[in-house]
Amino acid sequence: MDRNQKHKIKAQKQKEKVDARVAQAQIEQGIMLVITGNGKGKSTAGFGTVARCVGHGYKAAVVQFIKGQWDCGERNLLEQHGVPFAVMGTGFTWNTQDREADIAAATEVWEQAKIFLNDPQYHLVLLDELTYMLGYDYLPKDEVLAALKNRPEQQSVIVTGRGAISELREMADTVSEIKDIKHAFKAGIKARKGVDW
Amino acid sequence: MDRNQKHKIKAQKQKEKVDARVAQAQIEQGIMLVITGNGKGKSTAGFGTVARCVGHGYKAAVVQFIKGQWDCGERNLLEQHGVPFAVMGTGFTWNTQDREADIAAATEVWEQAKIFLNDPQYHLVLLDELTYMLGYDYLPKDEVLAALKNRPEQQSVIVTGRGAISELREMADTVSEIKDIKHAFKAGIKARKGVDW
Repeated sequence: MDRNQKHKIKAQKQKEKVDARVAQAQIEQGIMLVITGNGKGKSTAGFGTVARCVGHGYKAAVVQFIKGQWDCGERNLLEQHGVPFAVMGTGFTWNTQDREADIAAATEVWEQAKIFLNDPQYHLVLLDELTYMLGYDYLPKDEVLAALKNRPEQQSVIVTGRGAISELREMADTVSEIKDIKHAFKAGIKARKGVDW
Repeated sequence: MDRNQKHKIKAQKQKEKVDARVAQAQIEQGIMLVITGNGKGKSTAGFGTVARCVGHGYKAAVVQFIKGQWDCGERNLLEQHGVPFAVMGTGFTWNTQDREADIAAATEVWEQAKIFLNDPQYHLVLLDELTYMLGYDYLPKDEVLAALKNRPEQQSVIVTGRGAISELREMADTVSEIKDIKHAFKAGIKARKGVDW
């Protein structure tokens, strides 16, 4: 038996397995996806999913905690497609150095997040960098978890950021943890516009 | 000292560390980013970066190995912004079950990838699911590695897919490995349009 024939038999077996798994997954509901860990790709995975969602003609909304004070490529693009952005825009805590002002800004943008999480017209809500708001105790944990849990049944939600607390991981349907195997920045390469931001 | 004051001192120290690291990273060149692992978010991280790149007014190109035979939300959106797509479009190997036809399709789309990787007008080239082409021996490894290595100096490239071979990881500036902590599909939730595809 040559390599091509072996390949065909292996592929047929794999197809049977995949088909069986697809047949078992029949629940139709929005999912909660948590993308955490220290590696590169958390926010871009969130924004890539928003692009996918909008490209299919669904509505999506974005809330950016922490980031958003710079010129933002993904925002420039997605706003053209009707995606509303609620932006905290204060920057990193090591730049603001002001816990009370950070909390006030987080609370304000969270009010907008709650509106999105209560509106079934949004097929997907991206809560970019929300993890830090809970890790730092900037937002009331119980209220955030309740809003996530009580969102419309067909709405999906993506939470990104390092150090997702265990309650987020437990509530999520899908959890991806991105490990930082290596990073260009540590090798002295400057963060690149159009790639890193 | 209250919590807000402690926060300020901690933030100042962190700012010094971050500033020092930023000052050290001054090499300006395109990066090679590999996003691998079994977890959800590899392709969307790639497409999110393309959206970011295009949103800043740079040119980007996409090559989709494996996938691309279905209605593709990210493609619908990004093609509107002038992003060229080269698509293998054969689907998963367990569906085609035909190694020779897969290789022919991979070779054809790789010819287009080489053109993108040789053209400095592209700030970013996404090679979505390229890892499988090397893992399955569908494309000549040496040729692929040489094309990646010899691309224009300011061009960034993203390679996604499970099981990136060690040569890809070594060549890359940044490697993220996405661990599958849990997945909705395994809990019986059907893959969702606008989120999973």
